[in-house]
Amino acid sequence: MDPIHLLTKANSFSEQWSPRIVAQMNDCDVMVVRLEGEFVWHKHPETDDFFFVLEGELDIELRDRTVSLGVGDLFVVPQGVEHRPVARNGEAKLLLIEPRGTPNTGDEATAAKKIAI
Amino acid sequence: MDPIHLLTKANSFSEQWSPRIVAQMNDCDVMVVRLEGEFVWHKHPETDDFFFVLEGELDIELRDRTVSLGVGDLFVVPQGVEHRPVARNGEAKLLLIEPRGTPNTGDEATAAKKIAI
Repeated sequence: MDPIHLLTKANSFSEQWSPRIVAQMNDCDVMVVRLEGEFVWHKHPETDDFFFVLEGELDIELRDRTVSLGVGDLFVVPQGVEHRPVARNGEAKLLLIEPRGTPNTGDEATAAKKIAI
Repeated sequence: MDPIHLLTKANSFSEQWSPRIVAQMNDCDVMVVRLEGEFVWHKHPETDDFFFVLEGELDIELRDRTVSLGVGDLFVVPQGVEHRPVARNGEAKLLLIEPRGTPNTGDEATAAKKIAI
């Protein structure tokens, strides 16, 4: 029941592309993640995918366009839409929200384990 | 399908205590709100209540303590817990997330109408 400073949480670990759970809201995991370079193309058939940039820049590539996010920008990738997050200009730190247990790659076999911090 | 800069959205209107919907994520409204002074004591029997401070400072008073939030701080009030948001030091601007249709006062009769912007 303490306030959670998201960048402090993101700075408390160094591993990239490995979301850390900082809170729960109803059936969702509230997470911070550090990203750099290219992720894999994927989609989430069962859920929208929430991104909010805390630090740095993130491109979210869609099949027909790229959405470029800076600090303070939010974007929700609709359920089922293929996307690829790419941090081209150094590291980006983000707030992510997904239903508990959603695999970050869209596939349980390749998903990062989400660790609570 | 454009990025949503939350502070730009919050600065696009002036009414306080009147959440504006900026996106949807699954069954939730993603909102920005401007707060100043004291809100009413209330609770949400059916949902957790998500607060993230974009600008300013916010106290979330609970019956047994006060949680003081600054910029970059997140707090989730658990379902059913009485709370009162208070912005004591000027205006605060926040990101809020709640299941669609959740009354901001916990009571349909007194709730603000949530407008999409």
